Amino acid sequence: MHDSMPQNDGFTLGKCVVILSGGLDSSTLAYYLVDRGWEPHALTFRYGQKHEKEIQYASKIVQNLGIPHYIVNLDSLQPLLNNSSLIQGSNEAIPHLESPKQRTLAVLEKTVVPFRNGIFLAIATGYASNIGAGSIFYGAHFSDYAVYPDCRPEFVHLMQKAIQAGTDSEILLKAPFVHMSKAQVLNVGAQLSVPFADTWSCYKGEKIHCGVCPSCIERKKAFLEGRLDDPTEYARRL
Amino acid sequence: MHDSMPQNDGFTLGKCVVILSGGLDSSTLAYYLVDRGWEPHALTFRYGQKHEKEIQYASKIVQNLGIPHYIVNLDSLQPLLNNSSLIQGSNEAIPHLESPKQRTLAVLEKTVVPFRNGIFLAIATGYASNIGAGSIFYGAHFSDYAVYPDCRPEFVHLMQKAIQAGTDSEILLKAPFVHMSKAQVLNVGAQLSVPFADTWSCYKGEKIHCGVCPSCIERKKAFLEGRLDDPTEYARRL
Repeated sequence: MHDSMPQNDGFTLGKCVVILSGGLDSSTLAYYLVDRGWEPHALTFRYGQKHEKEIQYASKIVQNLGIPHYIVNLDSLQPLLNNSSLIQGSNEAIPHLESPKQRTLAVLEKTVVPFRNGIFLAIATGYASNIGAGSIFYGAHFSDYAVYPDCRPEFVHLMQKAIQAGTDSEILLKAPFVHMSKAQVLNVGAQLSVPFADTWSCYKGEKIHCGVCPSCIERKKAFLEGRLDDPTEYARRL
Repeated sequence: MHDSMPQNDGFTLGKCVVILSGGLDSSTLAYYLVDRGWEPHALTFRYGQKHEKEIQYASKIVQNLGIPHYIVNLDSLQPLLNNSSLIQGSNEAIPHLESPKQRTLAVLEKTVVPFRNGIFLAIATGYASNIGAGSIFYGAHFSDYAVYPDCRPEFVHLMQKAIQAGTDSEILLKAPFVHMSKAQVLNVGAQLSVPFADTWSCYKGEKIHCGVCPSCIERKKAFLEGRLDDPTEYARRL
């Protein structure tokens, strides 16, 4: 397994904090970190998302891995972020994509929760300082580049600088998948035997994946492009 | 009043978010923004601080000013930040300073809550995006420079860059007092008739200000240096 993984970039292996949503990317990242010999402490956030069901899936992943996990309750942010279609009480419905033509930037931008990763990483920074972890990881990847500014390498770089200045420390912020497509991330996950069925992507958060929200579309597309079996049960395959 | 205030640096006046703890500096900042024609929306944070009493004082300030106010419940962060003496359940006691000799950096550092302002500013960024506010303000000042890295101009500069990259926006992060001493901030407040008695500084959060914690010491010192009457009732004057 180690041979097929990217080389460690020279960090001291050890305690780190990882942001874990319960989706494909962050779950793969958690497996990747354990495989590489890190000691990840996972943070999962409840922030008024309609798909808070993802938190149960994050819990399955940490149970599989046997790593420490803390669920941070940020329900209080719901009224502060409620212009996003992903947030409970929003006037915006989660986009429903019947055809690839509907997948425009303007539609996808309704699924942005502004500075969500900034908020999660700031809290991860406080936690990392508190427990003496030298690195913070999150699962940003290139397929999210166009829509989500807080998944871009420029942001990772600048946020690390702000974190170091704001803590007077050398804490590293790492997004090892930031130059990979979601399909490539899935292939890393497949090599690590990540139980993809124990992950959740759907923004609607109903009984099974809806299959038509932007996140379900991305999930299906990544399995197809990555030439991997998709174990997900979708309400609509399209 | 306007003549004695620093000039506006060319921002579009308008809607902004201000971090308001209920202490002297952030309360003065809220008054300053209203005086300068801004429309501040105040955010106050409950994060497991022993002195959560400060929140009542923040509420007095916004009532005086008649501005929107939202109290963000981050109680969930308490176990993530509990190495700081300021947090409930910490093994560290709030330092008690009987003489100026005890005011060493090592002692004062026990009062750091790691990346606290980073966390508050990240949430303020999400909120600013949500309500279309172009600027975020907080009351960092030079007297906090040595102990609190997230009050330094370098941090303000880098955090603004991270905020802009992470939101793909031109949101401005401003700390107008960052080069002033606390005594100078108090003088700005006195010119604006800030009701200093409606502010709270004490880290212990008991019935009246203790007078011996680092924050009480700073409060007393600022009134003395600023040659202003101190309306605060202290349990011990020293």
